[in-house]
Amino acid sequence: MRDFLPADKARRERLLGVIRSTYRAHGFDEIETPVMEDSSRLHAGLGGDNEKLAFAVLKRGLTPDNFAAATDALDLADLGLRFDLTVPLARFYASHRSELPTVFRSIQIAPVWRAERPQKGRYRQFVQCDIDIIGESGVLAEVELLAATSAALAALGLDGCTIRINDRRLLLGMLDVLGFSVDEHSQVLITIDKLDKVGPTGVIAELRERTTSPAAVDALEEFFARPATESLPFGIDGITSALPVGVDPVVIGELASLGDAVAASRAEGDPQDGAAAPAIVFDPFLVRGMGYYTGPIFEITHPSVGYSLGGGGRYDGMIGRFLGSDVPATGFSLGFERLVDLVDLPDDASASSLALLYDAAADPVVLATLKSGLIAEGVRVRPVRRIKNMKLLLDSLVGEGFSHYAMVGADTREVADLERRSLGA
Amino acid sequence: MRDFLPADKARRERLLGVIRSTYRAHGFDEIETPVMEDSSRLHAGLGGDNEKLAFAVLKRGLTPDNFAAATDALDLADLGLRFDLTVPLARFYASHRSELPTVFRSIQIAPVWRAERPQKGRYRQFVQCDIDIIGESGVLAEVELLAATSAALAALGLDGCTIRINDRRLLLGMLDVLGFSVDEHSQVLITIDKLDKVGPTGVIAELRERTTSPAAVDALEEFFARPATESLPFGIDGITSALPVGVDPVVIGELASLGDAVAASRAEGDPQDGAAAPAIVFDPFLVRGMGYYTGPIFEITHPSVGYSLGGGGRYDGMIGRFLGSDVPATGFSLGFERLVDLVDLPDDASASSLALLYDAAADPVVLATLKSGLIAEGVRVRPVRRIKNMKLLLDSLVGEGFSHYAMVGADTREVADLERRSLGA
Repeated sequence: MRDFLPADKARRERLLGVIRSTYRAHGFDEIETPVMEDSSRLHAGLGGDNEKLAFAVLKRGLTPDNFAAATDALDLADLGLRFDLTVPLARFYASHRSELPTVFRSIQIAPVWRAERPQKGRYRQFVQCDIDIIGESGVLAEVELLAATSAALAALGLDGCTIRINDRRLLLGMLDVLGFSVDEHSQVLITIDKLDKVGPTGVIAELRERTTSPAAVDALEEFFARPATESLPFGIDGITSALPVGVDPVVIGELASLGDAVAASRAEGDPQDGAAAPAIVFDPFLVRGMGYYTGPIFEITHPSVGYSLGGGGRYDGMIGRFLGSDVPATGFSLGFERLVDLVDLPDDASASSLALLYDAAADPVVLATLKSGLIAEGVRVRPVRRIKNMKLLLDSLVGEGFSHYAMVGADTREVADLERRSLGA
Repeated sequence: MRDFLPADKARRERLLGVIRSTYRAHGFDEIETPVMEDSSRLHAGLGGDNEKLAFAVLKRGLTPDNFAAATDALDLADLGLRFDLTVPLARFYASHRSELPTVFRSIQIAPVWRAERPQKGRYRQFVQCDIDIIGESGVLAEVELLAATSAALAALGLDGCTIRINDRRLLLGMLDVLGFSVDEHSQVLITIDKLDKVGPTGVIAELRERTTSPAAVDALEEFFARPATESLPFGIDGITSALPVGVDPVVIGELASLGDAVAASRAEGDPQDGAAAPAIVFDPFLVRGMGYYTGPIFEITHPSVGYSLGGGGRYDGMIGRFLGSDVPATGFSLGFERLVDLVDLPDDASASSLALLYDAAADPVVLATLKSGLIAEGVRVRPVRRIKNMKLLLDSLVGEGFSHYAMVGADTREVADLERRSLGA
């Protein structure tokens, strides 16, 4: 967990502002949920391995007897800090469905917590930026997610991203056709998910050890030798050529139409674009870790880092767990902490900021008058006491983002008396 | 703890944006700290009664033996959720002093948590907006806090606020002069703090029961009969007349100069002002609950509500607890949840938003093209599937903040084909 000093905080807020306004322009609405959820909801099996990393919050009013009776941490905890924004969203939607549009497009920009061991690039408190569309079963939902996410990445000025796309149904169809038994599917997917880390040889070796279908592994090995990805617009032929014969042509058609619509949306451009829109490719071996995905899945990669910058997919079964009736849903999450390490945006506000340099003898009435007079002109103002080393002082003001300074002299009474000097190079 | 639906969330963010930009214009810098602090820091005696309300977070890796050995909740918790923003700020400043300006003006706009019993107007998660000035011992710091807070209240369009001001040193001086013994001071202040709730008669009755200084209580009773407050600029005479003879004239002079400077800063106005600046009055019986205050204290009241909308004061001793050497500090906190119930600001963004009405047969490619084309024009866009009851649909779009709609017909191909219709009355 980290503190954010003024420059870092301002930089983070600039990026979040761009993401928020891009998502709003794309028709999404921001919501907020409490940071704590009931333990029973956090531990309902929807969070995968992340459930184990939830910080548990102690029940209030505990007595020594409670402790004597407790054998597990969760006996004492009725609340926990959320480990993602998807479980809270499902709970939120189940609670408020009647107050929301039939198709609900949500934005959540908020911290989540995981009790991870500290390591580089992993934090125990970190911000996620999620968009989700609930109530739309067609590919239009995925088209909107991909268009909005592409626009956000471009508006952040992040060149060189790739969004990889696949569909869980194609993955399972491929395993079927290759001859893996249905019982083995989830284990095989966990192994294929390691492709980026261990390479095709590592995946095949692990599968040979684990499965009872050596012929299926041989068939898979052959597919690993084909070109790994197809670029947008991949079309039906592009997807078909990357898969074994016999995978459901309806799903292939849906994914091709998704690609066509995203390609069309890009032809129109976006006025905020600060960088080229990310490449979008079909990757038949993209798995995504979470077990709850049921349709199209996505992941953002960037050549300068070995981890994904975000991802998501369709999770049609999850909201039904809270609501009792199935509701289609799909979402895309940006890993904000990873983005903030890669990009920066200029600070527009520094153009009109002024440090008012005064000495110990200055009259508070004069300083207050000057400050409010400058603010009334639209200038950001900070009174700063003079020190002997003027160069040190001016350098520190530049570091704090000020563009101008002015000295408050013995005769200074009002704003018109100030001589404003630039702090620029 | 509450969920915020889109309209509420947007309303909250509009208010927070105004507060944030007002404070930034006044030269403050925003920072952020993690929501959890070490239990030992939260329970260091600086949070008053709020310490008892801190949510405790379970240690990770607990075993049954830990439970057997534990007799208190805190044996099992090494972290807790912050109950205010002042303790985290003191810890932040102590950690980062060398990276911060000599006089540090911070903004913190963030949630805090208290394990309160649910009751009207009290929440277990709520947002505070704090500004603090660390490293400035003179009244200029209080002048800046009061000017910035006044400007924020005015920019929010909240008419009719009063900021009451006093000084802890005047309070203690008054008790001294009246004849209360030093041992009794804090108990007497706790009783005087109930003035708003129980009135002068109630306070005097309670004091007669509790103190060993009946003559002092008689003397205090006489002061309660005087006019309660002096309006800005209260001046030295105004303050002196409200206090018994013999209270420290230096402190009176400081408070008068504070009032003069705030009055001067207001004469210059503020371009964002949406309402009259709050009245500022000297109130010799304003106490404020927290024990750590050492100088000027403030509280915001409003005639429509019985509780304060915010408050603060000087707390010169606190940061020294973390740093080992004393550092002057003063702060002003706005109770955001209470403000948000009283004010609203117009939504500027709704001016250019459009719902694209389509039916099931619509081509995703066409919808994607239209949406990105409109976004490129600067319009916020949401595709909405048509339903039979057109009136119901259009009413709901108004409720969701949309200003226009357009139908996607069988022949619609591009933005130029759309007929945009107003949703306005």
